[in-house]
Amino acid sequence: MAVINSIADLRDLARRRLPRALFEYIERGSYDERTLARNRDDLRNIELRQRVMIDVSKLDTATQVLGERWAMPVAPAPTGLTGLFRRDGEILAARAAQAAGVPFCLSTMSICSIEDVRAGFDGTLWFQLYVMKDRAFNELLIERARAARCPALVVTVDLPLQALRRRDLKNGLAVPPRLTLSSARDFVKRPAWVVDMLRSRRRTFGNLAAFFPDKGTAALSEWMGSQLGPLTAHDLAWVRERWPGKFVLKGIVDPQDARLAVDIGADAIVVSNHGGRQLDSGTSTIAALPRVVDALAGRCEVLMDGGIQSGQDVLKALALGANACLAGRSYLYGLAARGEAGVSLALEIIRRELEISMALTGAVSMRGMRAQVVA
Amino acid sequence: MAVINSIADLRDLARRRLPRALFEYIERGSYDERTLARNRDDLRNIELRQRVMIDVSKLDTATQVLGERWAMPVAPAPTGLTGLFRRDGEILAARAAQAAGVPFCLSTMSICSIEDVRAGFDGTLWFQLYVMKDRAFNELLIERARAARCPALVVTVDLPLQALRRRDLKNGLAVPPRLTLSSARDFVKRPAWVVDMLRSRRRTFGNLAAFFPDKGTAALSEWMGSQLGPLTAHDLAWVRERWPGKFVLKGIVDPQDARLAVDIGADAIVVSNHGGRQLDSGTSTIAALPRVVDALAGRCEVLMDGGIQSGQDVLKALALGANACLAGRSYLYGLAARGEAGVSLALEIIRRELEISMALTGAVSMRGMRAQVVA
Amino acid sequence: MAVINSIADLRDLARRRLPRALFEYIERGSYDERTLARNRDDLRNIELRQRVMIDVSKLDTATQVLGERWAMPVAPAPTGLTGLFRRDGEILAARAAQAAGVPFCLSTMSICSIEDVRAGFDGTLWFQLYVMKDRAFNELLIERARAARCPALVVTVDLPLQALRRRDLKNGLAVPPRLTLSSARDFVKRPAWVVDMLRSRRRTFGNLAAFFPDKGTAALSEWMGSQLGPLTAHDLAWVRERWPGKFVLKGIVDPQDARLAVDIGADAIVVSNHGGRQLDSGTSTIAALPRVVDALAGRCEVLMDGGIQSGQDVLKALALGANACLAGRSYLYGLAARGEAGVSLALEIIRRELEISMALTGAVSMRGMRAQVVA
Amino acid sequence: MAVINSIADLRDLARRRLPRALFEYIERGSYDERTLARNRDDLRNIELRQRVMIDVSKLDTATQVLGERWAMPVAPAPTGLTGLFRRDGEILAARAAQAAGVPFCLSTMSICSIEDVRAGFDGTLWFQLYVMKDRAFNELLIERARAARCPALVVTVDLPLQALRRRDLKNGLAVPPRLTLSSARDFVKRPAWVVDMLRSRRRTFGNLAAFFPDKGTAALSEWMGSQLGPLTAHDLAWVRERWPGKFVLKGIVDPQDARLAVDIGADAIVVSNHGGRQLDSGTSTIAALPRVVDALAGRCEVLMDGGIQSGQDVLKALALGANACLAGRSYLYGLAARGEAGVSLALEIIRRELEISMALTGAVSMRGMRAQVVA
Repeated sequence: MAVINSIADLRDLARRRLPRALFEYIERGSYDERTLARNRDDLRNIELRQRVMIDVSKLDTATQVLGERWAMPVAPAPTGLTGLFRRDGEILAARAAQAAGVPFCLSTMSICSIEDVRAGFDGTLWFQLYVMKDRAFNELLIERARAARCPALVVTVDLPLQALRRRDLKNGLAVPPRLTLSSARDFVKRPAWVVDMLRSRRRTFGNLAAFFPDKGTAALSEWMGSQLGPLTAHDLAWVRERWPGKFVLKGIVDPQDARLAVDIGADAIVVSNHGGRQLDSGTSTIAALPRVVDALAGRCEVLMDGGIQSGQDVLKALALGANACLAGRSYLYGLAARGEAGVSLALEIIRRELEISMALTGAVSMRGMRAQVVA
Repeated sequence: MAVINSIADLRDLARRRLPRALFEYIERGSYDERTLARNRDDLRNIELRQRVMIDVSKLDTATQVLGERWAMPVAPAPTGLTGLFRRDGEILAARAAQAAGVPFCLSTMSICSIEDVRAGFDGTLWFQLYVMKDRAFNELLIERARAARCPALVVTVDLPLQALRRRDLKNGLAVPPRLTLSSARDFVKRPAWVVDMLRSRRRTFGNLAAFFPDKGTAALSEWMGSQLGPLTAHDLAWVRERWPGKFVLKGIVDPQDARLAVDIGADAIVVSNHGGRQLDSGTSTIAALPRVVDALAGRCEVLMDGGIQSGQDVLKALALGANACLAGRSYLYGLAARGEAGVSLALEIIRRELEISMALTGAVSMRGMRAQVVA
Repeated sequence: MAVINSIADLRDLARRRLPRALFEYIERGSYDERTLARNRDDLRNIELRQRVMIDVSKLDTATQVLGERWAMPVAPAPTGLTGLFRRDGEILAARAAQAAGVPFCLSTMSICSIEDVRAGFDGTLWFQLYVMKDRAFNELLIERARAARCPALVVTVDLPLQALRRRDLKNGLAVPPRLTLSSARDFVKRPAWVVDMLRSRRRTFGNLAAFFPDKGTAALSEWMGSQLGPLTAHDLAWVRERWPGKFVLKGIVDPQDARLAVDIGADAIVVSNHGGRQLDSGTSTIAALPRVVDALAGRCEVLMDGGIQSGQDVLKALALGANACLAGRSYLYGLAARGEAGVSLALEIIRRELEISMALTGAVSMRGMRAQVVA
Repeated sequence: MAVINSIADLRDLARRRLPRALFEYIERGSYDERTLARNRDDLRNIELRQRVMIDVSKLDTATQVLGERWAMPVAPAPTGLTGLFRRDGEILAARAAQAAGVPFCLSTMSICSIEDVRAGFDGTLWFQLYVMKDRAFNELLIERARAARCPALVVTVDLPLQALRRRDLKNGLAVPPRLTLSSARDFVKRPAWVVDMLRSRRRTFGNLAAFFPDKGTAALSEWMGSQLGPLTAHDLAWVRERWPGKFVLKGIVDPQDARLAVDIGADAIVVSNHGGRQLDSGTSTIAALPRVVDALAGRCEVLMDGGIQSGQDVLKALALGANACLAGRSYLYGLAARGEAGVSLALEIIRRELEISMALTGAVSMRGMRAQVVA
């Protein structure tokens, strides 16, 4: 396959290149994967409204998110273990995001530490925080995000308990992943950088390792597993107080929760069901999106993730009220397939599809797009 | 497959371990199996409502059924021929149910007799009764259930005639099963305990054998076939008079029948279509459940079976008004796969899935769950 | 496959026994076969309403059709070329229908002549008439039906032009079938009776042959093809005047046409789309049935065909207002598989399924069934 | 396959006969091909209303389009590269259209020039225009269409940007096609006429070549790619002023655009989404058709394309308000399979299917068809 012109092409390359356990870590969802399937199916089934005879010679895919310009309305979603798919994967992806004119959002569960990523590129860096039971850890991580000049902190709220991803267990990855050389027993194709990483505790879970200089990879996994728990408004207010920048809550599907997020002080929310990796048999994010947008009535900005794999998907989400989208799997396929160039390609494929779909629906810019584009 | 983390995994093991005729006896439904498929499909298609920022640190899966505490809201359904899938299968399953904190409900058509089961474990034992034309038989069986200290009698009302399970006939099992060594001609893998059972009349249909000490297995099957027939309110009142404990009617799908059940004196009903093994092309139990619950307006408790194979399924049934669920195939897969440990595993898989789904829908306990959880 | 317990089993046997061209003549529909698929799908998707605690000990499947008692509410539909699937196929099927307590309806396009069939059994014989352009032919055929003591004449009205059955053309059968030894070139398995029939003009199209003693099989086919044409109310009134018995119009799907049929003097109509062999992409008969029944408001009786392959199907049609059903393919599978015994088996399978489905929906007889049985 | 009796049969022949790249150029759509699938699925799912006892002896498939008689209500749609599928493909197709009593509409992107086609047959020729940025080119092309005595000019408005057809790229065809001998590297079966064409610039893009006598095939492709762009009402008014004949706008799906088309001076529009080759995930044309017809309220005529592959499809479109249909793929299959005879066969198959479907829905002519035929 010499020609790559879709996210599906990148996915095929990624599947061939990665050990199966890692590919399936990207790919799969929790339990029977019905939320995963609904995210995708509901998105695909929305109809766009073809419009013609409109002057679309000046298409502008740029948008404003939290006061900053994004050159296109989709950025990489925060994803765990990204550095496992390519050596320094988070840095490569961050550079590609910068080149595409969008921020990169680093996960707490990244392989590269926030300091390494900050040193590795000079674009806009957001930080995704899992609030741990250990308050000191949270305070330090918030401080490190501030030091890394992150304008926005994205707090994930849909992980009070960790749902089961059956394939991960079968593949020898625990949930949350407990990475050891022996546990990864069916890593048939075991790339050098994975072996290196597993051998050296320095190279794993960079954000945790700094806090626990003496713990190895397995111990870090175990600590992580013990630290996750329910988050209440009270916990989030605690974070809000300590964070001077933009405050984003990720993992909201219900209109009632969206209103609470605003009350807590969220500048934006991410309509997300963790990519179909937490509650199974739940509502799709695209079905929830317009209800959430209605409930918010403009009181905060709305991002959305879950199944975004084309420009058409992005256009649908925008038409249903999202300010912008995040895409996880789409950029990881690119990263695994081709490194930084692959992430750039993934973003460019989506951007170009968006542009053409805008032209064909007569939507020349992000403003006033709603209700004009969806049939 | 070293890792078992779903009922589907247990089912795969059961299929490999059992003679095909016995696996299909568990698995299949009547005629074109459309009721069977609807039970499953309708359940799977219900959407759960993701909720976040709720304190779910104290999840409680316990519920009250007929005045007793169940540690989780799902128990084994009464199933026929259970002792064929493992030697002393009913006793093994009963022990696992007890360990999980739920009652075990023994079928009239069990292999082990009610006395054997009662002697084999000391948990809560319910008894399921097929009302026969022979009143003396019924009286004796009711008396035996009382002697076995069963707090509840579950009378099955959806078997006025026996529907056809086509696979059973093709597999050499009659309907109702007429077990003989020669009829079981394609039991390719014929486990020792099955052969033993077929050779010795003592080991089959324990509840019937006590009444007919001189009849062999085939004769017992034949007698059973001749004894089933329509049940009217009059027949059920006759049983109700003779049974001092809790009275449960199983096999109700229609709201009108649910109201009649209360009039007859039912303390609870089981919304059930016999697991898709009787009326074909009928309504699914999960679709019928909320209509039945509405019609009852709290006048009696509501259990439900039919397609329950995950904690998400249980949560949906509870959200639609069931007090608890029964699961037949799910526990039989475990029993066939691993004996008592397999039943325990089946119940634990469902319990844990329920717990996580409760956490992710913000439902901390069984109270007030309705309408909060289903989208 | 020793055990036969469904129409699908008989179909499998028929497929193995018949030359492919003949099997597909039974099986297939016109063009893209969407009407064929809808007949089946719409019927299967209707839900029956499980009812319990009703005294169903005296189930009665008998019904009244046009003043006569049918022991069960389904009879063989008139089908062309029936004598090709078994030697004297029409007579064998008629005997089986008689044994089952229902009439047999002979097609104009039968292989055995009406006189042969009348001589071959002494049950109730109906006659299906294709009105030809040649009035003398029609008059003679009507006279022959009267002489054969047929109480009812069934005039097919949905064949103003012959639609294409693509498989028939590919199999070397013309439409209408033009049977010659050479045209039947891919009759891989060519049973003796087919060869005999093709060699002797006496044995084909018995009803036509009597009118044209000098024409061979191919010439008869050709004549038939030239004689079919649109039928108007005027043509049907012409037949009505000449026919003293019960008058049935077959091939009505639209409520407006149903009302016209009554005006013309129909005692009954058959809601039919020619088994999915004429208009493609049309409405299914089961979807049309309740609309037709409503429009008729009891002014004439309603039979229905199209996809009836089980007792559940029959029960649904009755619940939606049909007085009885006709089944074509179901009985032809039996005929091809096992001759007269096969037709008996087909009818008995459906009757028994109906009986059990009646018991499980609490419907003890044909009276007052509507709206009680369908969910 | 000796017998051809459906468009699907012609498609199978075409697939076997053409190099894969060319077959897929005909076959495929843009991106995920959801618009392509919807065109087909929505059309197939519409139900026709069976009517009987109507005098359909005088069926008339003729219709009036823009003041001229069409012997049947479907004509070849304008299609690019047609001369690649058969030597002089446009001329062959034009002759077949003439024989069928319908006009042939030549594409700007044809292989044969408008002058060649005009010289090659003497039926009704329409011309489809892509408005280029180069006004002089447009003026010349309009002038050439006038000289070729085209009564109607069809201006395509749904190509402001070129969407991606993934298969074309993978097959070595650029979008718009950039034809060179080397780019066509996987033309496994490379017919002589294709090689000839690629070797000689004279034989490609006849309408462009006349304007650029010095450019080779690749240069013409490139120029074309740079010339397409958004069209506004202003641009179309410019064309309208210069064109004295009938003016048709093709590529309208939205009712608002349909009204604008009338304001610009369209005599007819073509409800079209470019056969699923432009906006992906858009509305199907058959779903859009009745809304467009309602919005127009008879102010201009309405043609429709997208998925028309049978007479039933045509009847549905007519019943939903189209004056006539255009079919692209259907006639190209015929052309690739059998040349001129194949196009004739394709048109005759559809015409005969239409005729029979008219008879079976009681629709004797094009007048008053709406709402009478669709269920």
